[in-house]
Amino acid sequence: MVKLVALYKQPEDAKAFDEHYFQTHLPLANKMPGLIKATVTKYTGTPMGGESPYYLQADMYFENMEALQSAMASPEGKAAAKDLMGFAGKLVTMMVGEEVNGESQ
Amino acid sequence: MVKLVALYKQPEDAKAFDEHYFQTHLPLANKMPGLIKATVTKYTGTPMGGESPYYLQADMYFENMEALQSAMASPEGKAAAKDLMGFAGKLVTMMVGEEVNGESQ
Repeated sequence: MVKLVALYKQPEDAKAFDEHYFQTHLPLANKMPGLIKATVTKYTGTPMGGESPYYLQADMYFENMEALQSAMASPEGKAAAKDLMGFAGKLVTMMVGEEVNGESQ
Repeated sequence: MVKLVALYKQPEDAKAFDEHYFQTHLPLANKMPGLIKATVTKYTGTPMGGESPYYLQADMYFENMEALQSAMASPEGKAAAKDLMGFAGKLVTMMVGEEVNGESQ
C-alpha cells in the first residue's frame, strides 16, 4: 500500500487553519477516488517538551502508485489540490511513500 | 492513541542507513515497553516527481502520553535513543502526536 503524505508546518493562526482544514479541506481530500483510508495526526510537541516543527500530518492510503496518481489527476484530486494551495501552499510538504514495516524492501 | 514519530532526512548513504536502521535500530526501538505497534514508511519522492526531503518515517504508537514517556525513560528507550543519536542524530526530527482522524478536537 502506498500513501500520499501532507506534512504541514506550524500555521500562524492554528484556529483558522483547523477550521479550514477540518471543515473544507479534509472533506474535499476524502472525496478522491481510490482513497482507501486517511489518517490525520496532530503534532503536540517534541519528546523533550519543545515545539514541534510540524503542526499536522495527513496520510492518504491507496492500493498502489497508479491509484494514487489517478486520484491526484481526478477532478476531486484537482479540487483538493487547488484548495490546499489556497490555504496552506506555503506550509505544506507533499510526499509519496510506502509502508515497509520492518522490511528493508 | 498517541504516537512518537521519527522523521529522517535523506542520508548520504542510503544503503548504510538501511542496514543500521532495519538490522539494529528498529529491533531496539521495538523493545520499548508499552509499544502497541510501529509502522515504517519509506518516502520515494514527491507527487510531482521530485526527491522527497525526507527518507523515512517511523510511527510508534502508545496508549497515551504517560505510556510514551515511560517507554522513553525505560532502559530499552534509552538504548534506542543512544543508538539513534549515534547513527542518525543529524538526520532525525522527533515529534509527539495524536491521531485525530477527522476530528478537529
